[in-house]
Amino acid sequence: MRELKKNIFRVLIIALVVLVSSCKEQANNVQAEEALQNGQEHPSLILTKKGVKAIRLQLGKLPIFDKSLAAVKAEIDAEITTGIDVPIPKDLSGGYTHEKHKKNFLVLQKAGVLFQILEDEKYAVYVRDMLMAYAKLYPTLPVHPQTRSYARGKLFWQCLNDSNWLVYTSQAYDCIYNWLKEEERATLENDLFIPFANFISEGNPQFFNRVHNHSTWGNVAVGMIALVMDNDELLQKALYGLKTDNLTEGMKDNDGGFIKVEGQKVGFLANVEEPFSPDGYYTEGPYYQRYAMYPFLIFAEALNNVKPELKIFEYKEGVLLKAVDALINLSDKDGEFFPLNDGQKGMSYYSRELVTAVDIAYHFGGNNPELLSIAQKQDRVLLDDAGLSVAMGIKEGKAMPFAKKSIEFRDGPNGDQGAVGILRQGDLELVFKYAAQGLSHGHYDKLSFSLYEDGYEVIQDYGLARFVNIEQKGGGNYLKENKTWAKQTIAHNTVTQNETSHFKGKYEIGSKHHSEKYIFSSDNDTVQVASAKELNAYPGTGLHRTMALIHDQDYDNPYILDVMKVTSKTANQYDVPFYYLGQLMQTNFEYQALKEPVPLGANNGYQHLYKEALGVAKEGNAKFNWLLNNKFYSITSVTSNGDELILARIGANDPEYNLRREPTFIIRKKNAKDVVFVSIIESHGNYSPVSEFAINAYSQIKNIEVVYDDANYTAIQIETEKGKKSLFVVSNTNNIKTENHKLTINNKDVVWSGPYCLKLLN
Amino acid sequence: MRELKKNIFRVLIIALVVLVSSCKEQANNVQAEEALQNGQEHPSLILTKKGVKAIRLQLGKLPIFDKSLAAVKAEIDAEITTGIDVPIPKDLSGGYTHEKHKKNFLVLQKAGVLFQILEDEKYAVYVRDMLMAYAKLYPTLPVHPQTRSYARGKLFWQCLNDSNWLVYTSQAYDCIYNWLKEEERATLENDLFIPFANFISEGNPQFFNRVHNHSTWGNVAVGMIALVMDNDELLQKALYGLKTDNLTEGMKDNDGGFIKVEGQKVGFLANVEEPFSPDGYYTEGPYYQRYAMYPFLIFAEALNNVKPELKIFEYKEGVLLKAVDALINLSDKDGEFFPLNDGQKGMSYYSRELVTAVDIAYHFGGNNPELLSIAQKQDRVLLDDAGLSVAMGIKEGKAMPFAKKSIEFRDGPNGDQGAVGILRQGDLELVFKYAAQGLSHGHYDKLSFSLYEDGYEVIQDYGLARFVNIEQKGGGNYLKENKTWAKQTIAHNTVTQNETSHFKGKYEIGSKHHSEKYIFSSDNDTVQVASAKELNAYPGTGLHRTMALIHDQDYDNPYILDVMKVTSKTANQYDVPFYYLGQLMQTNFEYQALKEPVPLGANNGYQHLYKEALGVAKEGNAKFNWLLNNKFYSITSVTSNGDELILARIGANDPEYNLRREPTFIIRKKNAKDVVFVSIIESHGNYSPVSEFAINAYSQIKNIEVVYDDANYTAIQIETEKGKKSLFVVSNTNNIKTENHKLTINNKDVVWSGPYCLKLLN
Repeated sequence: MRELKKNIFRVLIIALVVLVSSCKEQANNVQAEEALQNGQEHPSLILTKKGVKAIRLQLGKLPIFDKSLAAVKAEIDAEITTGIDVPIPKDLSGGYTHEKHKKNFLVLQKAGVLFQILEDEKYAVYVRDMLMAYAKLYPTLPVHPQTRSYARGKLFWQCLNDSNWLVYTSQAYDCIYNWLKEEERATLENDLFIPFANFISEGNPQFFNRVHNHSTWGNVAVGMIALVMDNDELLQKALYGLKTDNLTEGMKDNDGGFIKVEGQKVGFLANVEEPFSPDGYYTEGPYYQRYAMYPFLIFAEALNNVKPELKIFEYKEGVLLKAVDALINLSDKDGEFFPLNDGQKGMSYYSRELVTAVDIAYHFGGNNPELLSIAQKQDRVLLDDAGLSVAMGIKEGKAMPFAKKSIEFRDGPNGDQGAVGILRQGDLELVFKYAAQGLSHGHYDKLSFSLYEDGYEVIQDYGLARFVNIEQKGGGNYLKENKTWAKQTIAHNTVTQNETSHFKGKYEIGSKHHSEKYIFSSDNDTVQVASAKELNAYPGTGLHRTMALIHDQDYDNPYILDVMKVTSKTANQYDVPFYYLGQLMQTNFEYQALKEPVPLGANNGYQHLYKEALGVAKEGNAKFNWLLNNKFYSITSVTSNGDELILARIGANDPEYNLRREPTFIIRKKNAKDVVFVSIIESHGNYSPVSEFAINAYSQIKNIEVVYDDANYTAIQIETEKGKKSLFVVSNTNNIKTENHKLTINNKDVVWSGPYCLKLLN
Repeated sequence: MRELKKNIFRVLIIALVVLVSSCKEQANNVQAEEALQNGQEHPSLILTKKGVKAIRLQLGKLPIFDKSLAAVKAEIDAEITTGIDVPIPKDLSGGYTHEKHKKNFLVLQKAGVLFQILEDEKYAVYVRDMLMAYAKLYPTLPVHPQTRSYARGKLFWQCLNDSNWLVYTSQAYDCIYNWLKEEERATLENDLFIPFANFISEGNPQFFNRVHNHSTWGNVAVGMIALVMDNDELLQKALYGLKTDNLTEGMKDNDGGFIKVEGQKVGFLANVEEPFSPDGYYTEGPYYQRYAMYPFLIFAEALNNVKPELKIFEYKEGVLLKAVDALINLSDKDGEFFPLNDGQKGMSYYSRELVTAVDIAYHFGGNNPELLSIAQKQDRVLLDDAGLSVAMGIKEGKAMPFAKKSIEFRDGPNGDQGAVGILRQGDLELVFKYAAQGLSHGHYDKLSFSLYEDGYEVIQDYGLARFVNIEQKGGGNYLKENKTWAKQTIAHNTVTQNETSHFKGKYEIGSKHHSEKYIFSSDNDTVQVASAKELNAYPGTGLHRTMALIHDQDYDNPYILDVMKVTSKTANQYDVPFYYLGQLMQTNFEYQALKEPVPLGANNGYQHLYKEALGVAKEGNAKFNWLLNNKFYSITSVTSNGDELILARIGANDPEYNLRREPTFIIRKKNAKDVVFVSIIESHGNYSPVSEFAINAYSQIKNIEVVYDDANYTAIQIETEKGKKSLFVVSNTNNIKTENHKLTINNKDVVWSGPYCLKLLN
């Protein structure tokens, strides 16, 4: 029955197209001239009249622009041949109607642009006809039949996707605005755009009046269509939110995020203000920052063009432009974003959002030539003024390599809610997280880290438990394992106390706290240090982790010294996992494999780990050596008698195979109060399956030892296989750079200034 | 103590070098002239006097040659700076003394070549000094202290590696032969080369007098040094083996392979004759073929140069040159060899052995321009006449792409012992094995297959259980799991009856049999078919598998139809696994995950599989959909009520993590006599983690059904989601291409000629 309806609908549309087209084209030129005499010119949001002229002049002269244009033209020409389908909404993401409406808005925006640049009316006709089909459908729609969302849309199962639609479609409308007849504009605005904007704002204050990436999309959607229609009432709502919303504090969305927070400003400007730190870090993490960047920047561009007096790119000291630099720095060697919090792996600066971000940041942010090299890698540009600017910069040979270096991004609106620190050297990248909760997409993983080499994960952050838009897996939405596994502390490379997650895994608690940054020092090639404290994850327990990237000239690669100091009022069990990827080669400790793996625990993520094998440590060092991508790695850890060394694997209680069956190595200290977990992680060798030579297959660390540890200082002695002994000392209470320290270790005085030192002992 | 000895030894060597060098260089030129007046000129084996002249003339003119030369020069110059170390043998592969002696022979060969090409005496001095050190050490050596091998060497733990050493070192000796003083040659030959050759031949008949890749190396080692020394007695042993060996029939080596077989010819020529089929397929499989190719071809080249009257390249209709083509065709898109039998994954035509093979095949095999494109990928050439020839071909622009196509390689000395069939289309490669046992490196996997897309394994062949030369893992040697897991039938994508391996997993039985090829038809782009029978794996049970690559024009990729017909005199349990790689997305059947995985069985490899989940099938189709490398795959299988659908994973009873923890999907039919396993395997869609679009995520097969099955014919009806119905019929008893068939299915007559047909039904 539904199929039949759809088919009838299709026939109607085709009939409409044929009928209307034949009598209409002639009138359009006249009409366009009339429209020009109205107050606001069109296009004006992203494409501008002036920009379009400049683009037309450059056609055929700028390879990257021409290539981008040809790709878009080929795509849209194929779509026009396929015909228009505006199905009755039915599916979750991944399903047909969802994917079709998603495709429609992407196609509309591109067709609008082609009309402007190529001056071929077939594109305007196509945009008009599809918009008219939506104008016919929209008034008939109830809320979407799928009930999963706290804010159901009409075209899609959530207002978020409806907002996506409007952000793109507004641009298409802007492109054909002048070409349309006045009565056509009236139909579109009255039957489609205004009710659409009202529904996602007044109709869904719980969605629109928040500080959240959802609301950003909502605000921008309303703002974009307001700018096209020159509708100041809607624009005010977009910028400053709804004046009244009747929302009660404490309400939560279906991801568990707060909807209403006391004293919270709302609207687009508040959404710029709040989640971005002064360094341009977006508190949800880079995956969502990427997602949010598109509406932030596209609306900023539109505002800059239509309302230049707002000086949006200077807002909060240019934070929107800084955010683009931050995002690029939050990616690995291949441009893939570090999957902090709810991040899906594989998302990268090759995404369409980052093409937008890079081009806009280049054009409006002072023409940084390093951005051109990213645009070259993306190998496409926006078909607008910003894209033209990038294409010309590349043509003129201005591109310079984007130098990613060690960098710390502060979190929080004022930059005082912890940070994410990235230490880089050679092919190694260490990502250390000591930030705020990250709103509803945050994970409970204070002081966690991940390690990359050459763009590959070596010690992984699991990321989210979701297959975005893959319908087979929970409709492409968050899987229940995202809460039961991916967000839990034990899923991360940090300490878990007594098998409970940080802040008891409760968002209400976690969102009140953040870690404290303590040291970030990256000036010295021999030793770079990031250090931070977490005092609230477990009441009564203090966590202080110091990670150092140390480059001993005897060896090719630097190694990572990891010092996790735990002090507690009570005796506890502490687990520190290393989610290594690859195949275990050898350990220096004995372990017993279980005949049949059993879940490692019952709750808080432990129920998803299979315990595969157990070793019991002696006083000294435990070594764990593995192979990944034909590289040899080792973890060397200081152990005490009775520490448990657990080999485990993700996948227990995962009846639908929603989780990846990947391994971990866990160091467990039981019934302990104050402890220091000290490890060295090395990338020390490689293997060629072609020559079958194994080079430096073994750890280069002979011994590590905690030679001093009290409230004030922790000192580690490191001895390499070549016999070199070094001492690393960190001050636990004083991080002033100029402070002088003196400490007696094994009857020898050690003197230094600043919060840490690395000394050669022989 | 051993360290001290080594140091003293080093000092002695250095003293020797200084002493000898000073008084010697002057004499050498005179000496070289003298030597020329002897019977045989030098170099003559691989480099020839004429070739060296030609090379010198081309220096600086052939980029790939110059680059190869520069790389070798840089390597050897660095080695000369490091100094010579000839340690007392002690370690297994992966250990220091093993790797050092291995490096030494590679370096010696290269230094010899550099001396010839660059005419710089420092290389000759280096070769001489190292050989002298060996001549001093060798007479003092007992057999190697490691006792693992059935044929222990002196420098290495097995004669095999000693033979490697002599094959390379002979070339170095040839290069400096004329430059050496006569008394130096006498010392080297009497103290080193002759006793060395005697030890690996007369001293180890169980190693030397076989048909096996070990013996090939042994024969060639003796043959190469024989050619340099012009020693006919040794040459005869090399070519025809030892006349007497006192070996008893039934003896086995430590891999379980037979040593003495009744009536077996031995020596190099027998080793060309026996393991190579007329198509150039080497019965052990491509990994060992690659390993063996070096001695085969390098000795063939030397024989061709020194004893052209033997016409070695024409031997057995040019099989040695055909073998190079076969090897390239036995690799995936990235040039990695299919890991049939004991093959380590990652080995490819980028190995040094294949550089040798490709260059020699080009130079001596009629200058096939397709080989030049492989040489271009290898990006290096041999520094000899063959390499020069390739470099000139490339320089002259003669290279053409190597077109890998569907191809069948017969097995057995006469090509009548089954075959390996490869069906290719687009990015898909299906490898179907119905060959002979493959000597001691064979696996018990008659009628098994593996599937590749775009160079990635989709349904894998596990390969061997070994980490070659990675000392941490069993000294880099075969792991016990190679026997208990990798060789067993259940480790492969074929049928296992009653949880026992083919031929009871016994080499004595397996080596007496081979599968029978039945159809190989690759002329038609719409349907390519390979079909074979195995009648001996399970006495009383016949196996007949037909695999077809069918390209329905409605879809981008072809799909694989897999028909495994089993007929038995008794009721049995049959398991057919699919070792898919990637993440399960969805099944159309219910299954229950076990809370705690248990071993799937007790023996024959089953003890290494964890049973993770179990479903029970109904009449109809079971669908299994998964994601790998951002591509969607499905298996659709015809099932009967009560068939078990088992989700399992490798890794049970693997206390040392010697196995990769990879998954499998097993279809089990219990208490069945005659059955047909029918499946379709599709690569039907893809996912972009950047755009987050999932395209064609679901199987395109609506239904498959066995519509006819008896002793004579099996017919499968296939219906796609687009409603197209096709019929595939295979004749089970008559594979004559011209035979006409008529069959009535569902009251309709189907008429065709040849052993199979594919008909459109609507």
